[in-house]
Amino acid sequence: MTLEQFQTEIGVKFTNVELLKQAFTHRSYINEAANKQLQHNERLEFLGDAVLELVVTDYLYHNFTNPEGELTNWRSSIVRGEILSQVALQLSMGDMLMLSKGEEKSGGRNRNLILANTFEAVIGAMYLDQGYETANKFIHTYLITLLPDIIANKTYIDPKSHLQELSQDRLNATPEYRVLKEVGPDHDKVFTIGVYAKNNKIAEGTGPSKQKAEQNAAAAALAEWTK
Amino acid sequence: MTLEQFQTEIGVKFTNVELLKQAFTHRSYINEAANKQLQHNERLEFLGDAVLELVVTDYLYHNFTNPEGELTNWRSSIVRGEILSQVALQLSMGDMLMLSKGEEKSGGRNRNLILANTFEAVIGAMYLDQGYETANKFIHTYLITLLPDIIANKTYIDPKSHLQELSQDRLNATPEYRVLKEVGPDHDKVFTIGVYAKNNKIAEGTGPSKQKAEQNAAAAALAEWTK
Repeated sequence: MTLEQFQTEIGVKFTNVELLKQAFTHRSYINEAANKQLQHNERLEFLGDAVLELVVTDYLYHNFTNPEGELTNWRSSIVRGEILSQVALQLSMGDMLMLSKGEEKSGGRNRNLILANTFEAVIGAMYLDQGYETANKFIHTYLITLLPDIIANKTYIDPKSHLQELSQDRLNATPEYRVLKEVGPDHDKVFTIGVYAKNNKIAEGTGPSKQKAEQNAAAAALAEWTK
Repeated sequence: MTLEQFQTEIGVKFTNVELLKQAFTHRSYINEAANKQLQHNERLEFLGDAVLELVVTDYLYHNFTNPEGELTNWRSSIVRGEILSQVALQLSMGDMLMLSKGEEKSGGRNRNLILANTFEAVIGAMYLDQGYETANKFIHTYLITLLPDIIANKTYIDPKSHLQELSQDRLNATPEYRVLKEVGPDHDKVFTIGVYAKNNKIAEGTGPSKQKAEQNAAAAALAEWTK
């Protein structure tokens, strides 16, 4: 897939193709490049990530009446690296990536994190070159269409339930939560809770209630386990 | 300050004032309210948070050439609860808040977290009622104008440096970082690092490099200390 073909595929013709090229330029490539004017894609990724966040948030707000907590879970499920890199792969984004030889050798072209970041950088470039509406449409077409599947597969479930399932599968054990610390006055407490599997601490979380601190601890444990 | 006065003050006249009212409705108020049609502000906050994130990100991208990591730090500094609640106080947002009697008694009207969430909910309501551009202008006027001060006060500094300063001030000790775990193949490692003050573990962080894991551990420690 070339940049030209990619633009045809997604139905977006860039005014400034250099921006799109930059979106496909990994940090490692810059170090080896002779052209010192080249810029890598991390600033575009920073921008694209925020565009993506608003597009998905706006969609969820307008299409579901669920409470904020559920919408937050669904949003995290859809914008997580694993999903973004799948979409990037499906769009053959790896083909256009510019990487150092070292990254190339170690399989960087297909690495999830690099692909997910590239996907966000492409969104950033599109937003700059074509505006919010074009980025909005692109995100709808390639990402938001996956939401029904994600909901059906229950990947949106809350961290505690998710960890519970994973812990059963992996260790045949139920996670336990223990309060490690409780600080502050009654109306403004902060709880620190540890989550344990078979008496080994996996992670900790803090929050203004035990329930919130447990969810945060579970999320931290999931981050450990699924990284 | 009434809703009417507030709209005059910020120079934004809502078409649907019910949205603005909802932005000022705390969850606790709903439980006591006779009118079961009322909705609290958490969904609006969910939306406003994402609008705020994009406005600030777009501003930083266009006005600074710094690397993404620095922009991310600046962004966190400006959208953090402490700053948002300051702006909410300055706009007398507490006056218009609808709270339960219990929350009211325990000082909820001036609590940082409630005020910061209300500020985000007002942005969400404004975005729905008036569109992105109006929210953009509002955020520029009341929040982004604070950025030079924030940068001058170095509240943007990276988590490790910030923790180092805090730890010196509070404990007269330098934080220490210890690698607790290293998993995965060479090109895809995940490090877990603990940060300690006077041999007590404050928090842990994970990341694809030791440096990143240390920053994450420091950020987690700051979250503990400054909550």
